[in-house]
Amino acid sequence: MHRKPVIFCDFDGTITLRDNIIAIMKHFSPLGWEEIKDQILDQDISIREGVGKLFSLLPSSARKEVTEFALQQAEIRPGFEMFLTILKQDEIPFYIVSGGIDFFVDPILEPFNLEQAHVFRNESDFSKEFIQILWPHPCTEDCDVDCGLCKTSIINSYSKKNDFRIMIGDSVTDLAAAKLADLVFARGYLLEKCKELGLRYHAYDTFDDILQVLKTRPWEYQQLWEELTEAKELFARRDWFPGTSGNLSVRTKCDPLQFLVTASGKDKSKTTNEDFLLVNDQSQSCYVTDLKPSAETSIHEAIYSKLGAGSVLHVHTIYNNLISDLYFEQNGVEFQHIELIKAFNLWDEDAEIKVPIVHNYANIPKLTEEVLSVLDVRVPGVLIRNHGIYAWGKSIFEAKKHLEAFEFLFELRYKRLVISQVKSLI
Amino acid sequence: MHRKPVIFCDFDGTITLRDNIIAIMKHFSPLGWEEIKDQILDQDISIREGVGKLFSLLPSSARKEVTEFALQQAEIRPGFEMFLTILKQDEIPFYIVSGGIDFFVDPILEPFNLEQAHVFRNESDFSKEFIQILWPHPCTEDCDVDCGLCKTSIINSYSKKNDFRIMIGDSVTDLAAAKLADLVFARGYLLEKCKELGLRYHAYDTFDDILQVLKTRPWEYQQLWEELTEAKELFARRDWFPGTSGNLSVRTKCDPLQFLVTASGKDKSKTTNEDFLLVNDQSQSCYVTDLKPSAETSIHEAIYSKLGAGSVLHVHTIYNNLISDLYFEQNGVEFQHIELIKAFNLWDEDAEIKVPIVHNYANIPKLTEEVLSVLDVRVPGVLIRNHGIYAWGKSIFEAKKHLEAFEFLFELRYKRLVISQVKSLI
Amino acid sequence: MHRKPVIFCDFDGTITLRDNIIAIMKHFSPLGWEEIKDQILDQDISIREGVGKLFSLLPSSARKEVTEFALQQAEIRPGFEMFLTILKQDEIPFYIVSGGIDFFVDPILEPFNLEQAHVFRNESDFSKEFIQILWPHPCTEDCDVDCGLCKTSIINSYSKKNDFRIMIGDSVTDLAAAKLADLVFARGYLLEKCKELGLRYHAYDTFDDILQVLKTRPWEYQQLWEELTEAKELFARRDWFPGTSGNLSVRTKCDPLQFLVTASGKDKSKTTNEDFLLVNDQSQSCYVTDLKPSAETSIHEAIYSKLGAGSVLHVHTIYNNLISDLYFEQNGVEFQHIELIKAFNLWDEDAEIKVPIVHNYANIPKLTEEVLSVLDVRVPGVLIRNHGIYAWGKSIFEAKKHLEAFEFLFELRYKRLVISQVKSLI
Amino acid sequence: MHRKPVIFCDFDGTITLRDNIIAIMKHFSPLGWEEIKDQILDQDISIREGVGKLFSLLPSSARKEVTEFALQQAEIRPGFEMFLTILKQDEIPFYIVSGGIDFFVDPILEPFNLEQAHVFRNESDFSKEFIQILWPHPCTEDCDVDCGLCKTSIINSYSKKNDFRIMIGDSVTDLAAAKLADLVFARGYLLEKCKELGLRYHAYDTFDDILQVLKTRPWEYQQLWEELTEAKELFARRDWFPGTSGNLSVRTKCDPLQFLVTASGKDKSKTTNEDFLLVNDQSQSCYVTDLKPSAETSIHEAIYSKLGAGSVLHVHTIYNNLISDLYFEQNGVEFQHIELIKAFNLWDEDAEIKVPIVHNYANIPKLTEEVLSVLDVRVPGVLIRNHGIYAWGKSIFEAKKHLEAFEFLFELRYKRLVISQVKSLI
Repeated sequence: MHRKPVIFCDFDGTITLRDNIIAIMKHFSPLGWEEIKDQILDQDISIREGVGKLFSLLPSSARKEVTEFALQQAEIRPGFEMFLTILKQDEIPFYIVSGGIDFFVDPILEPFNLEQAHVFRNESDFSKEFIQILWPHPCTEDCDVDCGLCKTSIINSYSKKNDFRIMIGDSVTDLAAAKLADLVFARGYLLEKCKELGLRYHAYDTFDDILQVLKTRPWEYQQLWEELTEAKELFARRDWFPGTSGNLSVRTKCDPLQFLVTASGKDKSKTTNEDFLLVNDQSQSCYVTDLKPSAETSIHEAIYSKLGAGSVLHVHTIYNNLISDLYFEQNGVEFQHIELIKAFNLWDEDAEIKVPIVHNYANIPKLTEEVLSVLDVRVPGVLIRNHGIYAWGKSIFEAKKHLEAFEFLFELRYKRLVISQVKSLI
Repeated sequence: MHRKPVIFCDFDGTITLRDNIIAIMKHFSPLGWEEIKDQILDQDISIREGVGKLFSLLPSSARKEVTEFALQQAEIRPGFEMFLTILKQDEIPFYIVSGGIDFFVDPILEPFNLEQAHVFRNESDFSKEFIQILWPHPCTEDCDVDCGLCKTSIINSYSKKNDFRIMIGDSVTDLAAAKLADLVFARGYLLEKCKELGLRYHAYDTFDDILQVLKTRPWEYQQLWEELTEAKELFARRDWFPGTSGNLSVRTKCDPLQFLVTASGKDKSKTTNEDFLLVNDQSQSCYVTDLKPSAETSIHEAIYSKLGAGSVLHVHTIYNNLISDLYFEQNGVEFQHIELIKAFNLWDEDAEIKVPIVHNYANIPKLTEEVLSVLDVRVPGVLIRNHGIYAWGKSIFEAKKHLEAFEFLFELRYKRLVISQVKSLI
Repeated sequence: MHRKPVIFCDFDGTITLRDNIIAIMKHFSPLGWEEIKDQILDQDISIREGVGKLFSLLPSSARKEVTEFALQQAEIRPGFEMFLTILKQDEIPFYIVSGGIDFFVDPILEPFNLEQAHVFRNESDFSKEFIQILWPHPCTEDCDVDCGLCKTSIINSYSKKNDFRIMIGDSVTDLAAAKLADLVFARGYLLEKCKELGLRYHAYDTFDDILQVLKTRPWEYQQLWEELTEAKELFARRDWFPGTSGNLSVRTKCDPLQFLVTASGKDKSKTTNEDFLLVNDQSQSCYVTDLKPSAETSIHEAIYSKLGAGSVLHVHTIYNNLISDLYFEQNGVEFQHIELIKAFNLWDEDAEIKVPIVHNYANIPKLTEEVLSVLDVRVPGVLIRNHGIYAWGKSIFEAKKHLEAFEFLFELRYKRLVISQVKSLI
Repeated sequence: MHRKPVIFCDFDGTITLRDNIIAIMKHFSPLGWEEIKDQILDQDISIREGVGKLFSLLPSSARKEVTEFALQQAEIRPGFEMFLTILKQDEIPFYIVSGGIDFFVDPILEPFNLEQAHVFRNESDFSKEFIQILWPHPCTEDCDVDCGLCKTSIINSYSKKNDFRIMIGDSVTDLAAAKLADLVFARGYLLEKCKELGLRYHAYDTFDDILQVLKTRPWEYQQLWEELTEAKELFARRDWFPGTSGNLSVRTKCDPLQFLVTASGKDKSKTTNEDFLLVNDQSQSCYVTDLKPSAETSIHEAIYSKLGAGSVLHVHTIYNNLISDLYFEQNGVEFQHIELIKAFNLWDEDAEIKVPIVHNYANIPKLTEEVLSVLDVRVPGVLIRNHGIYAWGKSIFEAKKHLEAFEFLFELRYKRLVISQVKSLI
């Protein structure tokens, strides 16, 4: 069973395009506000303390004026309304966790008819001479940011063990929550931090970008991602990715086809949250991303489309290169009477397979066509001359089993050939 | 010294076939009970809180009626009585840890004459208008399930350092206890979780299934299991299991023969609690299980029966395949004047061994027969042509020593042969 | 973004040449002071307790005399004034954290015009008959040294998340702070401990030594250091540094050239904080150090200077040695029609490269000259006969990619040559 | 600097041959004492509770009788007096940590003139009708044994950071202290546990056995032990110990010669505290132990004696076996014009070495003699035909550097030979 998605979303700079508190301060520009802002940025005072001080510069009597200004200047990030509609339709719970204040957060959100219980923000008191901020959800002692509204403890109490937690945000106050999440949508500072810390994230500009990703239902392919990572780590240990070569994929959906595939040009000896991306049946990314699918993704795609494979693995090894060259003229290499061909589910004592070998066209569509033209349904692999092997199976497990068996057969054949000219055994 | 077994057993859904609380509620169907049930399932309220609320819907006056209904509807899981008899006979301590309530648990258990001090369950108070549940063993703060009866702390206080803890259960309230146990018998939700978390477990339907396993005395072969796992991990690091091939075993009992053997079709680069299973002298599992012993288990069995080996290791490597092919016509490969044959306990300077090689029959009984026919008591190994080696020893340690020595000799011979035609040294 | 430097500096034995407390005690030599000193050294009493006891041997009436003596005997470590000037100029925050006492620390520091808020030391009370020491910054319970002034908690409260913390010190009371720091300048006991614990450190005698290092701005190349360490660990796992051979480097600055390079004669299978040192465009260390750059550093330097490379990697492997010997007469080895040459950014189907091979002159300047004379801008590597390869790239990532591709090509070619005389395929 | 030794020693069953409390109870046999003893053994009550209960069965009026009996029956373990004399002479601090009671511990120890402050034991109160035991050093909450006298907290407060802690004991109440120690001397239950937990230990029967070990000053070679372990782990990762072959050693003392050498027949892929033992210049263990030095220890010894080496490493690899066989007729294998011979500190461009090869005599003294007869002071290694290499150096670091260089040269030569018959390069 997959975990169920639940979304937590920041407000200032995320739902609205800009930070509302800064906008208010800039506009009314009370004496001393810039010093306080600098103290916050220099981390000399905490965000909570700073925000409290900033509003204490404004008289309570300015309430209406301030509220109206906030409302008037706020711009909602494009796609937010459609985003909410789709979430409602798909019954995905949505919570706003905002360090903003009720008197501007609530009016700005009003048109979107969110449930009261799903919006967390700070509160304000206009009964004294100057505005006072109240902190109904203060930071726990675990957290040393002291931002005023503890997003992590709200998330912890509003999500369950089997939830797939998604965080949307942009700033330092979203970081602790992002670390907790299974998936982060990030902009600005948070984006940099996600990259640095190796969190699983997507960048976004609009809520449409986020929707694109959510439509792929990442909670459903989380486990395949982890399994593919394990295979990658095992092959990296065997030095099967020389010079960043090789690419791995696993199908996440059949119709229309979708699959996770290694991002191009990454160092496969390291594990990061950018190792794979999701592509569609045109070998294009399913969402906006800086990552590029491996150049040979269309070969993977063809093998999925034509053979209904569940996983496709492509590696360059010394022995698959040697065999692909030695047997190129014969169009393939045959194996018989070796126990390990049972890995291809061939149990007959005299079973025989021939692994096809194709020319290594630099033109990928041409190469893809060539690969497709030689496929043998009994043989889950094709060699490309002086390039490497494509091997596949119903699952990562099976594809890996096939690949290992091929590599064993190739090394065995090469070493058997080397000794074939020896005249007499010792 | 082995650890001593002690058993902790859930009640509702484990000793009885179904959950008694749900049965009671369904039958009397007090207004609002289904809402509470849904809240429990949705994790909106804790199990303890929910159960308390459920019974508070029933008037205390219905005590007799409720108790009689509970008693009448409860069905005991088959084999429970025999199970208790055997445990008593073998002096294995048995504790019931139940989230059920005294007024139905006690009458249902009455016929089995269990010691009072060995039954833990919640209590009830019929002195108020509605039934009230009392919680004499509340959850400690470590546990966030809040199921009402803290199975883990009971287990911790009723088991000792040298106990081998066995947990029998079926549901979410048994999970924390199962994580603590050395061995779990699981059904339903607990079974899924045991698989997911990699706990050491067996599935069961009846108490006879559990008895089957207990009769093998798993506490006695726990250490051998761990030792075999270590060998498997070492060989996996050396890539000695290409394409899930290879199988390892260790004898746990002589008469009648019992041994742990690798389960068929597993990825040997990963360590799980399903890596091995226990088989008897017919190469059949000693208990009900989804796991299948390796197809070639009968070869292991034959080596144990004929040679009294303590451990048998079978791997496919490039060099054992090469040598098995090159020397097949000679029926074996001879080694002399190489220091490493001392690993076979041959200390004479001119000692010589010949490792037999047999044809690789697809038919396993035929292959087994062939292997048996060539055994040489001085040589703890047999090669199968283009297949691999069987090597063995008194213990895993010795079998591994022999296997490593064989593999060294094979690689050495192959590389010596390769260079044998070189005319002049540089 | 790099982290920002902040410096914490001990006083007694660090800013002053000798320990002032010991000097005072030796001079006034109150009855029993040596017993107390021995108790401190034997760890029978804590430093805080000991220092308190020592001063309680002196009458408060001697205040003026003691202070004057302290002031008169104290010698400031050479370079301190210039050091402060440069820090001010470069806006690097500087804090003194001293276990000394106000009545001698303050007068000694007076000429240097440090901000009051940046000097932490203990205080004294002369109102009783004997001198009493006050401890305004006592050790927290985490620390078991009980030195009296808790340097670690001061550092923790005066440094920020993105600070690069630098600690300067000499004694046991600086150790906990040093463990916390990103970089340590150490003398005496602290120097020994830094070596033993594998802390990142530099030895110093004068503040000029420290300035030398600070001028290289270590906070700016910290990340490159870590990246180079990762590459080293990966290559060590592949046994690419036989007999401590091989050397790696990464450029940290262009103009004038500076680069990190492996220290000579280290065991590259271990990771220590002495693995690399920073050298300039004369292949000389940028600061005083016991470490020597690899003997072949000038080859790295030449490749940086001539080609503007970002990282240079040099390893000895079996296959690069074999190829360098086999193809030496041809002055190089050519590769064509192998997929992996795309790693050199050559995408044409018929692209071809020739890796140059030079004679292995024992004379390094001669060898460097030879390497420079054969460079081909399309080919990021040069082989040295029976020695190894130099490979490079814009970054560590790219250099590593090139190196792996070369090594793959070499092994492939060798194994292809071995089989070239085989008459017929099996 | 080495750490300084400090010894903590149990009393009952360690200094005395038998447990005095059990002896007293057996003799006076108060009603009910056996039930209490069984409860202790079954862990139903703690040791502290049990001992308290046992003595509360004896009337205080029997004080004299009990004390006299205790004194009369107690037998001191042989060698204790000499042991104390040597410790005093060598200024090694010695503490007794005993769960026994003052009224028998003190009189038994009286003849040995130990300092009061160095003896920890429980106390007794004879002022009530029955004997009451007092617990001046109760167990801390960290420990769940509740033995009554907390040995670990006494050790922690009476040892310092740079102490090498030695624990002598026999029973369950010594286990927590043993885990804390750097070295344990163990008998009985504690011996079994030390083996099981992989603690560093020696077995003993008498205090003479312990003295034997202490005379080797284990605190001085602790660091060499750890360094040798690291080398062993690295070589094991490279599979350089096939079939438990190979042995490593490091010299710990010159005159007379002492060195740590691998124990015979251990699985070198695992790290245990029995991996090495200390032997003398007769290749005999320096103390009583079950471990046997490797059979070829005398070869190590000869290399130390004749060459003053600091470390000797012997491994069997495929390539050292191949080369030793191929070049046997030439009595050695020569290398020239390969960069890596600089690892032997030969910097001349035309430097040349010849590694000698000797016949593999099964007779070890004969083999040793042969090895000695071919030694070349410039070449830190000797090959034994079809057996392996002995390589050495001033330190483990240097010996390892030499060994790696040899192995590189051997593999390189073999692969160069293989290709020597190839007619034309591709």
